[in-house]
Amino acid sequence: MKFNSNPVRGTFDVLPQDMELRNWVQDTIKKTYRQRGYMQMETPCIENLELLNHSEGGENLRLLFKILKRGDKLTFDELSENALCDLGLRFDLTLPLSRFYANNRNELPTPFKSFQMGYVWRAERPQKGRFRQFTQCDIDIIGEKSIYAEIDLLLTIPKALYELGFKNFTIKINDRRLLKDMVVKAGFKEEDFDTVCITLDKMDKVGEDGVTQELLDKAYEEAKVHKLLELLNTNIGGFDSEHAKELQKAIDIVSKYYPIDFEPTLVRGMGYYTGPIFEIVSEDFRGSIAGGGRYDNLLSKFQKDSIPAVGFSIGFERIITILKERNFKIPTMEKKVALVFTEEQQLKEVIDLTEKLTGGGSLVTNFFVNRNKLGKKVNQLEEQGYEVQVIK
Amino acid sequence: MKFNSNPVRGTFDVLPQDMELRNWVQDTIKKTYRQRGYMQMETPCIENLELLNHSEGGENLRLLFKILKRGDKLTFDELSENALCDLGLRFDLTLPLSRFYANNRNELPTPFKSFQMGYVWRAERPQKGRFRQFTQCDIDIIGEKSIYAEIDLLLTIPKALYELGFKNFTIKINDRRLLKDMVVKAGFKEEDFDTVCITLDKMDKVGEDGVTQELLDKAYEEAKVHKLLELLNTNIGGFDSEHAKELQKAIDIVSKYYPIDFEPTLVRGMGYYTGPIFEIVSEDFRGSIAGGGRYDNLLSKFQKDSIPAVGFSIGFERIITILKERNFKIPTMEKKVALVFTEEQQLKEVIDLTEKLTGGGSLVTNFFVNRNKLGKKVNQLEEQGYEVQVIK
Repeated sequence: MKFNSNPVRGTFDVLPQDMELRNWVQDTIKKTYRQRGYMQMETPCIENLELLNHSEGGENLRLLFKILKRGDKLTFDELSENALCDLGLRFDLTLPLSRFYANNRNELPTPFKSFQMGYVWRAERPQKGRFRQFTQCDIDIIGEKSIYAEIDLLLTIPKALYELGFKNFTIKINDRRLLKDMVVKAGFKEEDFDTVCITLDKMDKVGEDGVTQELLDKAYEEAKVHKLLELLNTNIGGFDSEHAKELQKAIDIVSKYYPIDFEPTLVRGMGYYTGPIFEIVSEDFRGSIAGGGRYDNLLSKFQKDSIPAVGFSIGFERIITILKERNFKIPTMEKKVALVFTEEQQLKEVIDLTEKLTGGGSLVTNFFVNRNKLGKKVNQLEEQGYEVQVIK
Repeated sequence: MKFNSNPVRGTFDVLPQDMELRNWVQDTIKKTYRQRGYMQMETPCIENLELLNHSEGGENLRLLFKILKRGDKLTFDELSENALCDLGLRFDLTLPLSRFYANNRNELPTPFKSFQMGYVWRAERPQKGRFRQFTQCDIDIIGEKSIYAEIDLLLTIPKALYELGFKNFTIKINDRRLLKDMVVKAGFKEEDFDTVCITLDKMDKVGEDGVTQELLDKAYEEAKVHKLLELLNTNIGGFDSEHAKELQKAIDIVSKYYPIDFEPTLVRGMGYYTGPIFEIVSEDFRGSIAGGGRYDNLLSKFQKDSIPAVGFSIGFERIITILKERNFKIPTMEKKVALVFTEEQQLKEVIDLTEKLTGGGSLVTNFFVNRNKLGKKVNQLEEQGYEVQVIK
């Protein structure tokens, strides 16, 4: 029996040339995060299923990869996914970070500026540019309630994007609390907030008319809907609240360095956001390439006291897709040398030469080749970008 | 309800200081592999369960983490693990590499010198130094049948260990075919080979007496057992076969650079090895820190023609454990500066100074602090190794 050699549906193999690009992007982001005082940490790819199931992960909970219990624990007494499984693959890095912080709090500084890079998994319907295993690159600040945390994130992520060659972008910012104020002021009930937001989130796709229609289809009164749409055109100066003033402060500072706009229709999907929310968009590419927000309640899942937290994440796979579309070439680093030999007794010389050349910083590969295939091999290697030395 | 904040049983969180060590070790290994012409690639962490189940992974197949089917595919018609699940977490990097090679062969050079670093999962009983999620760092050469492939690996892994500060070690080498010759020559049947090997593999733990006893307990005749033990004391010059000569060639070359011994009792667990096998041991630490061998048949699972392959892997978590026990300090890299400010209007100055200092290569973090907590904060940051600048 021959096995199918394709990777699992919705996932991808990374070829050497793509790996070089991914490494360069990761290293560039990492350098920027590190230089601004974010400390890298890591959590396991698997988490307890009970925790994942209670994570306010919204839509992502339907997309969990669940892991079967093992050994005696697997009984088949109850045939439900949650009875048969005890673990799951993480669907983001934010929930694991919250667990991590609660678990290791005594060994971490306050505030804790963290960064993480790692794979996450979601059983989405595979489609172009959407994968079932993909990389996230997050920075978070835990333990800082003031808007300075947001400002630090809002100055760090764009810096990383600049280093990656992205120049022409805008930060969009809103605050979940302002959004709630508007919804309530328009006459909706507080419990309608989430349903209304699901529709508002489609503004960039369906426009004001589409949003109006969908809210009417959801049987909300016309007067409320029109009032809400009117309020959504308020600029930040039109709000009279502490939250709006703080947001204005962030906008004032950040706008000195990067374009940033107040966007009252910005919703962002995750259920756990509680304050400012933001994303980065550009006309150069469809959709956002970074997003985040404040999630002050997530940590209280693990401990009595409430701990403020705010995070911002670069859409790593989007970046890779865009750079590949642009046919982006990473800066080449070292000289590539191929040593080719045809006689057994030349091996010692090849090894010593390899040692010498790698010591000087070159990348060196070597091949034993049949004398009558020498010409072909040399051509191949030159095509691959090697400087070829045939040992005589 | 408050959730347990521990990581999943048998896995671990990586704190920032440990992350720096892991990054340094990975970067050091990576640099050595890259410089010797190995090309990094990557496969998804999940593979189709059917493939994993037919991988000759031996003991590891009992330790698979299996992933429940999703949506309509999950029917509960048949209550077996393999009917309920369609995917699994990879238990090593060798099987995925074989699938990868078959899938991407047309885009890869021949021979293909690959390297991979990534997590693998095994549901082992957790114990000190043994984890359920751990990192492997493999190099492999696919498409080279000669002993030059083994020699290349045998010169590269020790080089990486040297760069990590490991000096006092020995390479042990054997050949599965020589082992088989000895077992057959002693009078055992060919089909007894695997069972006999399971016992031989315990030589370093239970010694010759222990091995003799276990073989007798398995009801093999005393004469055969004694003959086998006698043959196992043969040195490499005592064999008269092509395989022995090739092995001798590798030993001759490699011994010019690193200590290497023929070890006729070396077995190594994986069922897929077909030729030379090797590992690296030292009296400085118990057990081996690297191991590998030739697996010429694994790739024929995916394609008609047989393709030779040989790999060598560094035990990454062992390296980390040993370095931590040695209280190893990684070379520090950049100056760490903390900018502390107490007035809102100082923020612009802080941001500009951050930009300037990071541009000069420093690592810069900044904090807004209440004036009456300033002294305490400065002390904390100095303890963390920062040079503190208070903005006036």
